[in-house]
Amino acid sequence: MYSAEVQGILSKLGINVGDSISVALGSDFQEGILMPRSGAGDSSILIIKRKDGYNIGIRYRAGMRIEKTASGKPEFSFPSSGVAQGPGLPKISMIYTGGTIGSKVDYSTGGVYMLTKPEELLHEVPELGGIANVNISNLMSIASEDMTYIEWAKIAEETAKALNGGARGVVITHGTDTMHYTSAALSFMLKGLNSPVVITGSQRSSDRGSSDAFYNLICSCIAATRSDVAEVSICMHSSSSDDKNNLIRGTKARKMHTSRRDAFKPVNNHPICTIDEHGMIEYISEYRHALDKPKDRVSAITGFEPKVALLKAYPNSDPAIIDYYVNKGYKGIIIEGTGLGHVPSAPSIAGLSWIGGVKAAVDSGVVVGITSQCLYGRANKSVYRNLRLLSDAGAVHCEDMLPEVAYVKLGFLIGNYGMEGAAKMLTTNIAGEITARTEFDFPVG
Amino acid sequence: MYSAEVQGILSKLGINVGDSISVALGSDFQEGILMPRSGAGDSSILIIKRKDGYNIGIRYRAGMRIEKTASGKPEFSFPSSGVAQGPGLPKISMIYTGGTIGSKVDYSTGGVYMLTKPEELLHEVPELGGIANVNISNLMSIASEDMTYIEWAKIAEETAKALNGGARGVVITHGTDTMHYTSAALSFMLKGLNSPVVITGSQRSSDRGSSDAFYNLICSCIAATRSDVAEVSICMHSSSSDDKNNLIRGTKARKMHTSRRDAFKPVNNHPICTIDEHGMIEYISEYRHALDKPKDRVSAITGFEPKVALLKAYPNSDPAIIDYYVNKGYKGIIIEGTGLGHVPSAPSIAGLSWIGGVKAAVDSGVVVGITSQCLYGRANKSVYRNLRLLSDAGAVHCEDMLPEVAYVKLGFLIGNYGMEGAAKMLTTNIAGEITARTEFDFPVG
Repeated sequence: MYSAEVQGILSKLGINVGDSISVALGSDFQEGILMPRSGAGDSSILIIKRKDGYNIGIRYRAGMRIEKTASGKPEFSFPSSGVAQGPGLPKISMIYTGGTIGSKVDYSTGGVYMLTKPEELLHEVPELGGIANVNISNLMSIASEDMTYIEWAKIAEETAKALNGGARGVVITHGTDTMHYTSAALSFMLKGLNSPVVITGSQRSSDRGSSDAFYNLICSCIAATRSDVAEVSICMHSSSSDDKNNLIRGTKARKMHTSRRDAFKPVNNHPICTIDEHGMIEYISEYRHALDKPKDRVSAITGFEPKVALLKAYPNSDPAIIDYYVNKGYKGIIIEGTGLGHVPSAPSIAGLSWIGGVKAAVDSGVVVGITSQCLYGRANKSVYRNLRLLSDAGAVHCEDMLPEVAYVKLGFLIGNYGMEGAAKMLTTNIAGEITARTEFDFPVG
Repeated sequence: MYSAEVQGILSKLGINVGDSISVALGSDFQEGILMPRSGAGDSSILIIKRKDGYNIGIRYRAGMRIEKTASGKPEFSFPSSGVAQGPGLPKISMIYTGGTIGSKVDYSTGGVYMLTKPEELLHEVPELGGIANVNISNLMSIASEDMTYIEWAKIAEETAKALNGGARGVVITHGTDTMHYTSAALSFMLKGLNSPVVITGSQRSSDRGSSDAFYNLICSCIAATRSDVAEVSICMHSSSSDDKNNLIRGTKARKMHTSRRDAFKPVNNHPICTIDEHGMIEYISEYRHALDKPKDRVSAITGFEPKVALLKAYPNSDPAIIDYYVNKGYKGIIIEGTGLGHVPSAPSIAGLSWIGGVKAAVDSGVVVGITSQCLYGRANKSVYRNLRLLSDAGAVHCEDMLPEVAYVKLGFLIGNYGMEGAAKMLTTNIAGEITARTEFDFPVG
């Protein structure tokens, strides 16, 4: 609701929410649809949805010229209350962790604030009531950049609890920036999975006309309710339009764009399937199928060794960084090498050797994995002499694993299976993170 | 030529180079086209091109069963000598620096060796004789992973010398792994450019049937001879087939696949143009055009500060890494943040703050730039509160620059313009590394 003053002025002008209006003050001029006010913020700020889909906030001031340019209905409906509930429909759990999908713009400051109650989000997606019986778990409210292995463990445990408690599937809402780190972590941590675990989020907050939040929630709930993909996956837009979502394996996904709705891409893989809002699921590649009768309960194996580093080799880079981590007691290092998995072979400007540094680290018991900063393709330990030298020094070329995934995997392995187990298992496929062979037609981008 | 013994055996069986043969010894069996021997290596090793396009070497031994399965001509012609020279044609310089394009497989070891004379490469591309009068400069023979700013400076100086000496354009052959670092460095280092400077290489060595070396050399020489693109660019395959190459701005290119021929992609940009082997140049986006009458000579500004670090912020990462570099006397740090350019905002597991670390570094005079590990898209300093906190700490969000390009640029700026100049110029466009706005249709991949 707008303030009494603003509401009075609007009424006098015959303006209702949903009408097109223009607002002018001095040289400022804005035009668009008058939106309803809800949530926090100054109630004397008019919210206008412009033609470009963005909502803006304008504080009402004396001397402001407001005109009604057309009557209309708001483009979206605004249900006032009621959590989505579909009695008789499959039961799923939605685990809320924070991120843009759980935030709204505060039009008085331009900043973004987190919803205090995740139920608010569901109020805006009445479609969910026709898909599933959604049980909401308000686990945490954390920005994507602040997720750590401690949160990964909590989410894994909550997911296992929901599935062992009878949920048909789980949808996890999450910030997008580190979503692919979390999806990899959950892929390794959840053992005995027999149900879909779908992570979703949004690139734009739910009160922006261009928000992808609603579509992503709908498709994710369909994936959790109707697919038999017994894997951890990411469900986000497959293109810039709301036409279908990709379900991407949790160990093969990467955020490849800062802001596009279709930011998430499968790397060295196809999507598992596409899903649209009508429930059409189109399977594209192989996946782990849910069994009719699961043999085991799902368990969460949540050990994690945080003393693992992810670093890059690049021209002029100083290999002393390896010593630095070894001296700090790090147990694992994942290097993003160039091309097939190279580090500089010649002495650095300071006279130090990357390959020598790797050998010293391995000799002192540190596990060193090599990935490619190309991201797409596969690391190789033998095509060139310099690759063989690095491999002979004890580094493990990590096949077609993404650097981020190799990093999460190494922390998981050391945290649960010790150093020897980790070195052996790094190149053993656990959760689809390594594909046996590279298909020529895996898309790049 | 094969050894006298092997040649004698082949003659007795009526087998000539180009015939299909099978070779069996015990359980080993290989089939393919008999290839000619040239260059280094053991002359008793038969070289066979298999159906999958790969050449393999098999040492002739007693008891080996060799059979001719079909007569044929070699798929490729093998000119015996003669450097490409087209009198009357435009004069270009080809600067040879090493890399896969200048290497061949040694079939006795399976390893790759460098050509001692780059002219060998040109012998195999007689087409160049119809395109340009090529002057070869055998500048260095360095694997891509061993390129440093010292080599960048040498290449820049050699390029300026060639252009000031009257070359219509310059083609630089280079290893692919760090080609995009070099292309960025040359883009910044070459001032007053009025001619095409085209960097090329190959993903597969020139004696493999699937080599992209010849096609890339032809298209690069066409770009250097016939285009008016007065920029540093990368000329590599636009798709997996030999149908056309992309010319990609040197500051907007990235190797995005370990092994595909079309590994190089423009990021946050379109290709400048496509070029095919028939000389068809199709211009796609804006570029710096060569003037009819250049005003200045080209100069090479080769200062570079190697004490610049490129590092990544990721879940669980320890911000103490910033102190480490500051204490080592580093003058610049480029961080690959998550999403729009975030670092963790919460204290790390060790209780340290990324944003605090950045502030301390900036306060001590270090330039800190923020890019996105998404690679595609644009860093932003204001959409979220945590971005503003990072920006308030003194970090510079680097617009739509690639992390690698921001790294090279910062080293270049500090090396030539000092610390204050560098901080100011980091977000000023110098060589197309920053685009004024993000086009929605820039391809991802």
